[in-house]
Amino acid sequence: TTAYRIAVLAGDGIGPEITEVTLNVLRAIAPRFNLDFEFVPALIGGCAIDAVGEPLPAATLESCRQSDAVLLAAIGGTKWDTLPRPLRPETGLLKLRAGLGLFANLRPAKILPQLINASSLKPEVVAGVDLMVVRELTGGIYFGQPRGIFTTESGEARGVNTMAYTATEVDRIGQVAFETARKRQRKLCSVDKANVLEVSQLWRDRLTALSAEYPDVELTHLYVDNAAMQLVRSPKQFDTIVTGNLFGDILSDIAAMLTGSIGMLPSASLGASGPGVFEPVHGSAPDIAGQDKANPLAMVLSAAMMLRYGLNQPAAATAIEQATLAVLEQGYRTSDLMTEGCILVGCQAMGEQLIAQ
Amino acid sequence: TTAYRIAVLAGDGIGPEITEVTLNVLRAIAPRFNLDFEFVPALIGGCAIDAVGEPLPAATLESCRQSDAVLLAAIGGTKWDTLPRPLRPETGLLKLRAGLGLFANLRPAKILPQLINASSLKPEVVAGVDLMVVRELTGGIYFGQPRGIFTTESGEARGVNTMAYTATEVDRIGQVAFETARKRQRKLCSVDKANVLEVSQLWRDRLTALSAEYPDVELTHLYVDNAAMQLVRSPKQFDTIVTGNLFGDILSDIAAMLTGSIGMLPSASLGASGPGVFEPVHGSAPDIAGQDKANPLAMVLSAAMMLRYGLNQPAAATAIEQATLAVLEQGYRTSDLMTEGCILVGCQAMGEQLIAQ
Ligand SMILES: CC(C)[C@H](C(=O)O)[C@@H](O)C(=O)O
Ligand SMILES: CC(C)[C@H](C(=O)O)[C@@H](O)C(=O)O
Repeated sequence: TTAYRIAVLAGDGIGPEITEVTLNVLRAIAPRFNLDFEFVPALIGGCAIDAVGEPLPAATLESCRQSDAVLLAAIGGTKWDTLPRPLRPETGLLKLRAGLGLFANLRPAKILPQLINASSLKPEVVAGVDLMVVRELTGGIYFGQPRGIFTTESGEARGVNTMAYTATEVDRIGQVAFETARKRQRKLCSVDKANVLEVSQLWRDRLTALSAEYPDVELTHLYVDNAAMQLVRSPKQFDTIVTGNLFGDILSDIAAMLTGSIGMLPSASLGASGPGVFEPVHGSAPDIAGQDKANPLAMVLSAAMMLRYGLNQPAAATAIEQATLAVLEQGYRTSDLMTEGCILVGCQAMGEQLIAQ
Repeated sequence: TTAYRIAVLAGDGIGPEITEVTLNVLRAIAPRFNLDFEFVPALIGGCAIDAVGEPLPAATLESCRQSDAVLLAAIGGTKWDTLPRPLRPETGLLKLRAGLGLFANLRPAKILPQLINASSLKPEVVAGVDLMVVRELTGGIYFGQPRGIFTTESGEARGVNTMAYTATEVDRIGQVAFETARKRQRKLCSVDKANVLEVSQLWRDRLTALSAEYPDVELTHLYVDNAAMQLVRSPKQFDTIVTGNLFGDILSDIAAMLTGSIGMLPSASLGASGPGVFEPVHGSAPDIAGQDKANPLAMVLSAAMMLRYGLNQPAAATAIEQATLAVLEQGYRTSDLMTEGCILVGCQAMGEQLIAQ
């Protein structure tokens, strides 16, 4: 038996409900794969602000550091939206990413045949879409200095943020991206704005240099405006996309929305060493919190990503992914994906169906 | 008769062909509305680099300044893509925007019933879409200082760009946006990344303050990642969008692509005073240049925007727009929009049909 300590950050809104289902699924598969999970809960986001006055308590970061992986549900809610920035739920998330050195964010977007009608795009445009966005997560304009709202000489307010990347930062995310593409269709598209930004010029130059070490991967470049258009026009052209923190935020959300089922999409955030963070792409959906309506599948699939990318247990990951597909195949749907002829289930019942599978 | 001096910047690729058609259309309607156009050609982009070694010759900027409006076709091509940044076609465009103080870029995206099938989105998702993106065009990360590729203390390269806005810059684009929304459905959505960026926090605060002066316009705010998703999920929710330079670059291209017919979309770039620049959203399409295949309608519709927003000749603008619709209604299509049952025409023939209308 292999024992794992998993930090569990249930967060806000629907977070606790989808966490419960996910942990039950992990408990259910554990014996089959000789795994033994110790789940250690910790606070993050709004609930942490309410309990201890900050969105990422030191104890939470410490508990994550001592774990083999971190499962995160979702954070935030209108209740905390008007607090000053250091006290906002998002700030906790950004500190967690920085604190664990999670520079690589992997966001798959795959169209499932069972859910193809959920897309706002034509079925023939999205059928077969299977892409991976590799987003740099601890650099760029999210963390660049100087930043702030300053007063100019003429006495008016000026807001400033800095988009910066060093060669080292570009190279390490570039390596993750090339390695990722290598395990997929060997096509890597790097997205930047090198026709306007020097930081993008450096990004492009480093990616191009790096590609010499990956002759088996085809590297292309797109400007971010064109990449956004191409994702909408013809997403099948993409296999793996690599981009900076801000462009990745936007493009991975577009990629997610192409599937029409953002309630299905997981993500993994990885560092050079230490635990990764695995979390659904969707938010905390405060409007349906506590009503047993949430779709737990994105978090369940995030647990599968944890098994594959964080704990190196690919067989267990595949088991979860297949159970998910089987449940969809049988017609079970939470309300976000409900269509005629399907069977409406709540969050808990969806979990029970998964475990039955 | 009202006389106008129009600077004509045909640029590269398909630029000259679509310019010819557009000028012919303007010549054709001129007498009907008692207008007298003097068209003054000038160089910009790749052709200017080839002819005089820089993408925006001083003579061009001077000629634009002396004109009542500027008609620009398209710039760029692979031939100039590897030149250093100061010698790139795009640099000419950025200098033109800065040189004329064109801080407001208006980009309408409207689904025409005749072309609804060109969209990659489902017809029911895009039917009725009629939105306007108001993009700040002379500030933000496109022009912020410091910028460049520097060497860090440890001797490695670091690319840096600065996203900055002053309160004054936000207010003046905000005013244009509120005024624009007022002439439309009175719904303004401001897009930023205020949960992460201080420059966005200032943006949001100023827009919110400004809204007190426009009680008849409903102001909402979205984060840029969510806005990109919402454009794909359900674009009909939008009327007028206002955002900064970089986010506007991305979102206006998404909005354009929703229509599926980027060959149809015009834009207007306006300053506080002086001539505006009117240009199609699409690029110079070097692959089809000189083959009489280009769709001239985006540039023709840009001429209509020139008449409406630049020369205050709304009746003439409407005449052009109606001729465009009539030609589409009759089934004429350039190859980018050709579908079964329609009549394939080249760039020139499309122009003749327009004039006949
Ligand atoms: C909540 C926010 C800070 C975050 C981001 O911008 O990174 C979110 O949008 C995401 O993509 O995980
Ligand atoms: C060519 C490029 C510099 C330009 C921009 O980024 O503004 C273009 O994408 C546009 O939107 O007009």
